[in-house]
Amino acid sequence: MSSDPHGDGNRVRATLSEVASLADVSISTVSKVLNGRAGVSSETRARIEALLQHRQYNPRASKRPVAPLLDVLCYEIDSPFASEVLASIEQIARQRRMGMVLTGATDKHLPEQSWVDDVLRRAPVGVILVACVLPAKDKQRLRSRNIPLVMVDPAGTPAPDVPSIGSADWNGGFVATRHLLDLGHRRIGIITGPDNMLASTARLSGYRAALDAAGVPVDPELIRPGEFHHRDGLVEGRALLSRPNRPTAIFASSDLYALGVYEAARSLGIAIPGDLSVVGYDDLSIARWAGPPLTTVRVPLLAMAEQAVHLVSRLRDEPELAFSRIDLDTTLVVRESTGRPRGSGRHTAAKVSNS
Amino acid sequence: MSSDPHGDGNRVRATLSEVASLADVSISTVSKVLNGRAGVSSETRARIEALLQHRQYNPRASKRPVAPLLDVLCYEIDSPFASEVLASIEQIARQRRMGMVLTGATDKHLPEQSWVDDVLRRAPVGVILVACVLPAKDKQRLRSRNIPLVMVDPAGTPAPDVPSIGSADWNGGFVATRHLLDLGHRRIGIITGPDNMLASTARLSGYRAALDAAGVPVDPELIRPGEFHHRDGLVEGRALLSRPNRPTAIFASSDLYALGVYEAARSLGIAIPGDLSVVGYDDLSIARWAGPPLTTVRVPLLAMAEQAVHLVSRLRDEPELAFSRIDLDTTLVVRESTGRPRGSGRHTAAKVSNS
Repeated sequence: MSSDPHGDGNRVRATLSEVASLADVSISTVSKVLNGRAGVSSETRARIEALLQHRQYNPRASKRPVAPLLDVLCYEIDSPFASEVLASIEQIARQRRMGMVLTGATDKHLPEQSWVDDVLRRAPVGVILVACVLPAKDKQRLRSRNIPLVMVDPAGTPAPDVPSIGSADWNGGFVATRHLLDLGHRRIGIITGPDNMLASTARLSGYRAALDAAGVPVDPELIRPGEFHHRDGLVEGRALLSRPNRPTAIFASSDLYALGVYEAARSLGIAIPGDLSVVGYDDLSIARWAGPPLTTVRVPLLAMAEQAVHLVSRLRDEPELAFSRIDLDTTLVVRESTGRPRGSGRHTAAKVSNS
Repeated sequence: MSSDPHGDGNRVRATLSEVASLADVSISTVSKVLNGRAGVSSETRARIEALLQHRQYNPRASKRPVAPLLDVLCYEIDSPFASEVLASIEQIARQRRMGMVLTGATDKHLPEQSWVDDVLRRAPVGVILVACVLPAKDKQRLRSRNIPLVMVDPAGTPAPDVPSIGSADWNGGFVATRHLLDLGHRRIGIITGPDNMLASTARLSGYRAALDAAGVPVDPELIRPGEFHHRDGLVEGRALLSRPNRPTAIFASSDLYALGVYEAARSLGIAIPGDLSVVGYDDLSIARWAGPPLTTVRVPLLAMAEQAVHLVSRLRDEPELAFSRIDLDTTLVVRESTGRPRGSGRHTAAKVSNS
């Protein structure tokens, strides 16, 4: 039983009894560690975990999973962004007949303390993180059981040791801003995401690059920060629109920001797109439902989910797979929230080709 | 091992070997049926399932669940309604350290064919249906394994054999309509849900009762049907607002309808609340994000989720628990989308007490 019954090459995986013998403990002690149960000293636990990882213990070798599970840890499950990502992951998991176990994260984007113990007990095919981060010790424990980990659109700078699936954020920021420039806008505000998220830095960088390419100077006063909540769009939108020389367009770098900007404009009597053009980001359902329907950058959530589930399955079979990040393409979807600035022609949305 | 180790009364639960002996088959055949595996004739399967149910086979008696799971089947996972219900169920399940396995339903509100097999393999603590229905044979199979089933806000008329958690829909329809009447509206349109959903019938009935109580005749032309999608709100809202003697208020019986009505009003140049008052239903986040923020009927989703998870756990221990339905209270939340009709005073939202 020491050779991999799935026949993927000449790697040798350990059985429970081999690990027990190497660690000089009983099989039941190894089993306790594997199943996250108490009653093992932290020193012994660490020794066994190191052995498990080194020998690539494979639960499949000793027991066949009867109903494969896929664990998903997600920040703000009920946010419009998360709910569409989760629906996409569920759809792909269902096609593969994996049960998606969904757990919410804390407001620090972290799992609860007991989460990793529960995951080890469930022994899923893999773990997908949606806008969450995992402490190093939790990653280590998953790795010791050969449970692969993949991040989708990671919050914070992606950890180099965890493969991640994202989308072309720089390109998204660039095409959104160029669309506004093509319509004739020169004073274009932006509401960015948190500094520590690579996605928001990349969108801002795309915005700057588009302005540079058009020879329009970047005005730091028009760059406002936020945390991707509706309220930030409202507050920062109001701040931008209350300035003496207010912008004629705002690139709201999430659809939820854009709804906040809509509300700021409405409360100030500013018409969209007549007095103000707005571009969102993500292309969630709320973008179609907005009044007027929102011009936005489409993020391919279903394709991202597909890549994430596919990658988890591949990593399960090939843990050493060299891989760090895939970015999928973003495109501009032009609806009714963008038009020419006052005094430069008609105030309707112009069709601009995607890059 | 034939008496219940959990000591809840004098009911006797069967072990695997007792069922095998009664059915005159091997233990492995019973095990195949229990775990949803192939290789058992449909006749034998039916005989074993009947015995399992009759004898109340209890998986706990033969194996302890190591990581308890809660299965949730949900229609349109990414709808704003579903995503808030799911986040609530997940929160309660997490507090109880149950892993929530989430599966999407088909567009007929049904599970995929393979779903029930997978559920049996997972052997969850229980199953919660969100806006879904289950074929009789699937219910039967769950029952034969003593896996309890609870519905949340059921689509279709709730099955009398499945306990369900809902909210006071008649009261919600009544307080929404009375709020509009109190503001001085007399021509009040309504967009209802599908006829075969008890929730929509009850909301419509509350609307009629409030009009009756105020001595305002019900105009059948102002009652429009829908399927709880944004598009219905847009199409039916436009139909209502294009009438010669158009309504001054619309009770949109879901928040998503209300957003559609907003868009219909915007495209016709009708101001909210100046020219038109709108009341939604559910009080999802999209109600707060709407421009203007939406007056709506609050449905206590977190409390409903809590009841559902609690009930599943109770039914697990007491399968004969007499129970059919709990309706939790609904309340009116007044925001900025309602005001007095033109010609009757100020056009701002009035504070009206909840019933």
